[in-house]
Amino acid sequence: MKIYKKAILPNSFQASAVASGIKKSGKLDLALIYSRPAAIASCKFTKNSIVAAPIKLAKLYLKKNKTFYAIIINSGNANCFTGKKGFEDAREITGFAAKSLCINKEDVLSASTGIIGKRLPLSAIKQNIPQLVRGLSGQGIDKLAQAILTTDTSSKEITLNLDIGGQIITICGVAKGAGMIAPDMATMLAFILTDARISQRALDRALGICVNDSFNCITVDGCMSTNDSVMMLANAAAGNPLIEKGKNLDLFTRALRLVCVELARMIVRDAEGASKFITITLRGAKDFNEARTIALAIANSNLFKTAIYGENSNFGRIVAAVGASGIDIEEKYLKVKVSPLNRKEINVEVSLKRGKSCATVYTSDLTPKYIKINAQYN
Amino acid sequence: MKIYKKAILPNSFQASAVASGIKKSGKLDLALIYSRPAAIASCKFTKNSIVAAPIKLAKLYLKKNKTFYAIIINSGNANCFTGKKGFEDAREITGFAAKSLCINKEDVLSASTGIIGKRLPLSAIKQNIPQLVRGLSGQGIDKLAQAILTTDTSSKEITLNLDIGGQIITICGVAKGAGMIAPDMATMLAFILTDARISQRALDRALGICVNDSFNCITVDGCMSTNDSVMMLANAAAGNPLIEKGKNLDLFTRALRLVCVELARMIVRDAEGASKFITITLRGAKDFNEARTIALAIANSNLFKTAIYGENSNFGRIVAAVGASGIDIEEKYLKVKVSPLNRKEINVEVSLKRGKSCATVYTSDLTPKYIKINAQYN
Repeated sequence: MKIYKKAILPNSFQASAVASGIKKSGKLDLALIYSRPAAIASCKFTKNSIVAAPIKLAKLYLKKNKTFYAIIINSGNANCFTGKKGFEDAREITGFAAKSLCINKEDVLSASTGIIGKRLPLSAIKQNIPQLVRGLSGQGIDKLAQAILTTDTSSKEITLNLDIGGQIITICGVAKGAGMIAPDMATMLAFILTDARISQRALDRALGICVNDSFNCITVDGCMSTNDSVMMLANAAAGNPLIEKGKNLDLFTRALRLVCVELARMIVRDAEGASKFITITLRGAKDFNEARTIALAIANSNLFKTAIYGENSNFGRIVAAVGASGIDIEEKYLKVKVSPLNRKEINVEVSLKRGKSCATVYTSDLTPKYIKINAQYN
Repeated sequence: MKIYKKAILPNSFQASAVASGIKKSGKLDLALIYSRPAAIASCKFTKNSIVAAPIKLAKLYLKKNKTFYAIIINSGNANCFTGKKGFEDAREITGFAAKSLCINKEDVLSASTGIIGKRLPLSAIKQNIPQLVRGLSGQGIDKLAQAILTTDTSSKEITLNLDIGGQIITICGVAKGAGMIAPDMATMLAFILTDARISQRALDRALGICVNDSFNCITVDGCMSTNDSVMMLANAAAGNPLIEKGKNLDLFTRALRLVCVELARMIVRDAEGASKFITITLRGAKDFNEARTIALAIANSNLFKTAIYGENSNFGRIVAAVGASGIDIEEKYLKVKVSPLNRKEINVEVSLKRGKSCATVYTSDLTPKYIKINAQYN
């Protein structure tokens, strides 16, 4: 298995990005992923009951359709809480992109990220779609990884090669994060592309497992977004023996897990205003969900996060957060260990003696810079 | 009904406070409430599964005993996560206070607030108890209201007189708050004293209703404390006709509710680092609990709180928080209204059209000062 810390498109994928004027800064804000042949898709979306228009539309097309040629993404505006008109905007954008690509409108998935409650500048976006399509290239992923960002300070990219039955396949992931990061789904947007031949069932299964261990195990501010989406496309262009089950599916899942965990960790590392990267390992729980619930209760405690920021060994706050998790903890079995606080990477280990399950959760500290960023962002 | 913005002890109550050296600053940190005749008690405690030693002890005595002469309180140290030894410390302190007051040890309730995970300075406390007892006086409540504070910038006090069957009764409340404030129980400590004659059942019922509408409707940082206690004593010294039910209980409950809501609001007004006082009113919910859950989801959103701090009209964050509350909201019925942001008092009104219930929740904004205070506090 070979790992690259940058995005490299798998076979038969292309990408592109332009600045369409959604971002006042003039930065890249509209991006396109394209695959020919059409790819099967597996997607995970936010569990927020208010969801953005592009997610509603993508869910509709995922029901109607089995394979997809493209994903169109914009940053700077979430197209959420925009009512029927916002939904029509999303439909018109994907429809216009489909027309420019000479494909059906149901062949295009959609994602947005940015401010909630404002309409998209529809005509500016439509004006820029022809240029977006013309710009598609096998090298376009670099620009795309930039174009999906909002308050992120750097792009999140990873690529991995692995051998499936004598054939090299590629899995490439890009993500954006920064704020409003909480399970479930703890990322704003992630796109994972592979040229592997894999069955729909195997792909869904693998992505489910991997998202649970990665994007669902990170938190920045405990705020669940309305736009969180993980979208994965698999176009079979590598020509490997079909991944369905057994050893090949295990291999694929392990590789995909690495891609997801690394992207999730990059999101936390680039959390808004963060000065520390915190790994919380919870041992001795009854099951994984219990372990994760308690670890996240610590990770989401403002008092814990400010203590880490202040390099203040006030570990009673960890105890209080564990007790407040809703799970009945026995004080005498509760053990807490924290690595030295004057480092950038902090490890918190908590054990309970309730069972044998374990979970690892990643988070950041809470800093005055987080407040400054979010006091101003609009 | 007459309301005073300061604490005035009801008939036959005394109070006292000393600086015993728990606080390094040398400020008042040990306090005593004393009633003769003995008073019936009603208490509400934190739902955190890790609870402090003084709460464990108070719960034990509340089971064994029906009336109480005293409450001993310390600030600066929570006596929590201190194991069996911490529990013995609490028992020894209340026992020693009981001896000095010539009463049984089960006649004394206990409460602590401050840092978690450190042992109390037992001998310093014991040394100061005789002076504490000698200092008891009908005017001692002012010092007590100071002695229970930690990072609070001012004491929280209220007193109220009302006529029950031709007899004036007094209800006096003091509280401390500042940080680690969340339902349930959204206060660190509150002590409510009354000279009313009231049955145990009526007192429990009235306090339950009032706490639900007040201390359980405020949040500062969403962090649930291990020490939260509301302790109420009623010593019957006013000689009013016994309050059991009907009009007199309604009158008493209304007055007690006012005391609790005012103390709760004072806690939020003095929240750590707060620059805004935020009232969130949630209308059109199916029931009170649903309304409160959604209002608290907004109140606990760091992104919402930083937006208010920054006077940033990014109200999409309110929508995202409502949707993340776990309750299935219909976007088309969701209405959000926010008062002008350049004021100290902010009103947020949200309506849902799911039903006819309503809840009001109080919170503060999230500021760099909150982080500074909590990065340093130990």
